[in-house]
Amino acid sequence: MEENKILLSEKEMPDKWYNIQADLPVPLKPALNPATGKPIGPEDLSVIFPMELIKQEVSLERWIEIPDELMDVYKVWRPAPLRRARRLEKALGTPARIYYKDESVSPAGSHKPNTAVAQVYYNKKAGIKKISTETGAGQWGSALSFACNLFGIECEVYMVRVSYDQKPYRKFLMHLWNGKVYPSPSDRTESGRAILKEDPNTPGSLGIAISEAVEVAAKSKDTNYALGSVLNHVLLHQSIIGLEAKAQLKKAGEKHPDVIIGCCGGGSNFAGLSFPFVKDKLDGKPIKIIGTEPSACPTLTRAPYRYDFGDTAGMTPLIMMHTLGHKFVPPGIHAGGLRYHGMAPLVSLLVNQGLVEPRAYRQNSVFEAAVLFARTEGTVPAPETAHAIRAAVDEALRCKAENREECIIFNFSGHGHFDLAAYDVYLSGKLKDLELPQSAIDKALKDVPCIEC
Amino acid sequence: MEENKILLSEKEMPDKWYNIQADLPVPLKPALNPATGKPIGPEDLSVIFPMELIKQEVSLERWIEIPDELMDVYKVWRPAPLRRARRLEKALGTPARIYYKDESVSPAGSHKPNTAVAQVYYNKKAGIKKISTETGAGQWGSALSFACNLFGIECEVYMVRVSYDQKPYRKFLMHLWNGKVYPSPSDRTESGRAILKEDPNTPGSLGIAISEAVEVAAKSKDTNYALGSVLNHVLLHQSIIGLEAKAQLKKAGEKHPDVIIGCCGGGSNFAGLSFPFVKDKLDGKPIKIIGTEPSACPTLTRAPYRYDFGDTAGMTPLIMMHTLGHKFVPPGIHAGGLRYHGMAPLVSLLVNQGLVEPRAYRQNSVFEAAVLFARTEGTVPAPETAHAIRAAVDEALRCKAENREECIIFNFSGHGHFDLAAYDVYLSGKLKDLELPQSAIDKALKDVPCIEC
Repeated sequence: MEENKILLSEKEMPDKWYNIQADLPVPLKPALNPATGKPIGPEDLSVIFPMELIKQEVSLERWIEIPDELMDVYKVWRPAPLRRARRLEKALGTPARIYYKDESVSPAGSHKPNTAVAQVYYNKKAGIKKISTETGAGQWGSALSFACNLFGIECEVYMVRVSYDQKPYRKFLMHLWNGKVYPSPSDRTESGRAILKEDPNTPGSLGIAISEAVEVAAKSKDTNYALGSVLNHVLLHQSIIGLEAKAQLKKAGEKHPDVIIGCCGGGSNFAGLSFPFVKDKLDGKPIKIIGTEPSACPTLTRAPYRYDFGDTAGMTPLIMMHTLGHKFVPPGIHAGGLRYHGMAPLVSLLVNQGLVEPRAYRQNSVFEAAVLFARTEGTVPAPETAHAIRAAVDEALRCKAENREECIIFNFSGHGHFDLAAYDVYLSGKLKDLELPQSAIDKALKDVPCIEC
Repeated sequence: MEENKILLSEKEMPDKWYNIQADLPVPLKPALNPATGKPIGPEDLSVIFPMELIKQEVSLERWIEIPDELMDVYKVWRPAPLRRARRLEKALGTPARIYYKDESVSPAGSHKPNTAVAQVYYNKKAGIKKISTETGAGQWGSALSFACNLFGIECEVYMVRVSYDQKPYRKFLMHLWNGKVYPSPSDRTESGRAILKEDPNTPGSLGIAISEAVEVAAKSKDTNYALGSVLNHVLLHQSIIGLEAKAQLKKAGEKHPDVIIGCCGGGSNFAGLSFPFVKDKLDGKPIKIIGTEPSACPTLTRAPYRYDFGDTAGMTPLIMMHTLGHKFVPPGIHAGGLRYHGMAPLVSLLVNQGLVEPRAYRQNSVFEAAVLFARTEGTVPAPETAHAIRAAVDEALRCKAENREECIIFNFSGHGHFDLAAYDVYLSGKLKDLELPQSAIDKALKDVPCIEC
C-alpha cells in the first residue's frame, strides 16, 4: 500500500517563492492614492513597510529566492506533510483520491507563519525594532508574535476587544512568544482614544484595530506594520505551500491535480496552494481551482469587482478587488478568519478572469464536513479550513456519481484546537445558518468610492 | 547541515512491540487479590479486559507482533518525527545534541492513542461493544474516544466533575469523536450514587471515576474497561515510541543516546521511550535513564516500594510499586497527568534496581524550561512534558559545564494547547511552588495494607 503521508526532506524544500505576477493573463490594476486618484508609489508604502517587501509587492520576476537564514527558520516546521485522506475517501465511497496539505503543523497551528517569518526577516534586515499589527481571534497575532520572538524583534498586537476578553487562549499564546497584546480600541493611540471617547464599552472591530496598528507604525521610525493576508508579497510567501505540494504529488505518482481547493478570507492560504498550479492551467492542463467562502461573507460569489479600501476606516490605498464594501459587517460566524469584506487583488483578478471558481457554503454544511473529517482522519480542522473540506467532500461525491478517479487536493490551513466550543454548538444542534440579505450588501456598497464604476 | 527532523517512512515503522518483561534483571512480583493475598489469575481480569490484553500483561516474549489492521491505524499519524532541538541547544550554549521524540502529532495531541487504538482493537476482536473509562483533565478520555470512534465501538467516559465543569475543551473533543462523557460522580452507577448521597456538591476525584467506570464494565458482558497507563500491556504498546526513536537516532548517525528522559505520571510515556534502550544499558552501554516527576507528587523520589491498590477506593488488585498511598491527594498542580499516587510496576522495579534515576522538580522551574522551549523550538509543551524538558535542559547545562558532547533524548509526550491558561499564570508571576510535607506522605501510607512490609 502507498503511504498516507508524502514527506519531503528538508533538502527537498523549495528555495524560491513563485510570483504569479509573472504569469497573469492581464496585468494587476495599481493601488490608488484615495486623495489623488493616482497610483501609489514605493515612497507611500515605505512609511510602514521595508523596501524589500515593497519590491516584492510589485515584482514581475517569476521566482524570488528565499534567503538562507529564512530557509533555516522555515525548517523549524517545514516541509509540511502532504496527507492522503484514505479514511475519508472510504467513508464517502469515492473513487477520487483526496490529498490535503497539512499547514496545521506550524507552531502557531496554521499557514500564517509562512509569511510572518518572512516579513519579520526583511524588517529585521532593514533595522526595524518593532512591528505592530492587528488581530481578530488571534491567528495572525500569534503567528507574528512567534516570528518576532524568533528574530528578537518586539511585537505589538492590537486585538479586537471582544476576542481579547472572550477568547483568551491565543492571547496567552502571544504572551508566551513575547508578544505585547492590547485590547482594541486602546488608549495608546489617537484613533483608539477617539473611539473610546465616543463609546467606552465598544467591543471593537478589525477595522479599528488596523487603524491603531498602522498609526503606531506610521508615527515611529523604527516601527513597521505587518499584514497577514491580501497583499501580493504575503501571497508570494505562501506559495511555498503549493510548490511543496507539487513536488509531493509527483512523489505520489500524480501527474497533476484535477481539483485544487482552498478557503478564502483575505486569500493567502488559497493562493499559497493554488497559484503554483495556475501556470499549468494556463498551459492547458484541465485543473479546476475552487475558492470557498462563507455564505455569510460572500465576497467572491456575490460582491462586485471594483476599487475599495482595504480597511474599515478608509485609511489604506484603494485596491481593485472583489469587495462587499469596506463598511460591511458580516454576521458573527465561527470562521472568524473568513469575515473580511474584501479579497486579495490577485485572487480577485483570477476569479474575474474565470480561472478560479468561487463557492459559498453555510455554517451547518461546513461543520458537517468538518465533523466527518475529524471522525475519519482524526485531526480537528479550524472552522475556516472546514470550508475547503466541504468543497473537497462535494467534489469527491461528484466523482462518485460520475465514477471518475480524479485527484483532489485541498489546503488544511489550520487546526481547530481553539475552536472546539464551536463544534459543541454544532453537535448540540444549536448552530444557526445566518442568511445575508442582498440589502445588507447593497447598503455597504453605497460607501465604496466610485472609480471606473 | 543535518536535518532538524529525522523522519521514518511508514514502511520503516516497527511492526513489533518490545516487551521488557523478557529482559528484566529480576522478575516482576505478581499482582495480588486483596481478599486472599494470593496472586490473581487471568479469570480475575477477564471480567473487564479481553484475553489478548491479559496475555500481553503477563507475557515473557521479547517481541509481540502488531496486527496489520492496527499498523494501518498507527499510520494515521505514525511514525512520529524525531526532532533535533538546535535552537534550544544554541540558546543554552551547550555542546550536547538534544533530540525529542514528538508524540504531540497524534490527533489527540499526546502519546495516549498508541495504547488506546491497541486496546480498542483487541476489545473489538473479542466482540466487545462498549468501553468505559475514567479521565481527569481529559487526555486519556479523548484518546480513547478517538480510538473507539475509529473502530466503531461505543466509548463511555467518567470525567472528574471539577474538570468537566472547568476544562470543557477536552470534553468537546470527546464529543466530536463520539465519546459519551459524564461528570463523575454520576447517578449512573451505584458507587456514584453513594457518593452523591453523601455530598451532592463533591468535585469528584479520579478514584471515584475509576470506581464508576469499572462498575459499568463489570456489570455488563459486552462492556470492558480500559486504563491509560500503569499496566504492563499499556507500557508494551508505548514501546513503539522508543523503537522508532532507536531507528531515527541511527539515521542521525548517533551510536546510542547518553541520556534518556521522560516524565512519569503512571509511567507509560517514559517507559515507551526508554524501555527499548534498557537492554542496551544492561548489555553495558553507558546510558543514563531519568524519570521526572513533580515535587508535589514525588512517587519515585520520596515514596516507598511496596504493595498498594491502584485506585483510591481500593477496588483493584494489590500491585507492587512505588506508592504515596492510594488515599494520597497531591496538591493541585497544573500537570494533572502527573498527579497519580502510584507508578507502573515495571517502572517502579527499574527504579528499585537502580536502572532508572528519578528526579523531582517544582512547578516554577518546570514552566521556566517550558517557556524557554516554546521560545526557541516554537511548539508549546504540555505541563507534564515540561518536566522532561526541565531535566533535558539541566543535563545540557551539565554537558556545557563539563564540556561533553553528549546525545540527550527526551519524550515530547504532548502539546500544551489546552494548558495555555497555566502558562499565563506562570508568566504573570503568580504560579506557586507547592511544598509537600513529609507528614502528608506518612499519613497516606498508614492506609496502605501491610504485605511484606
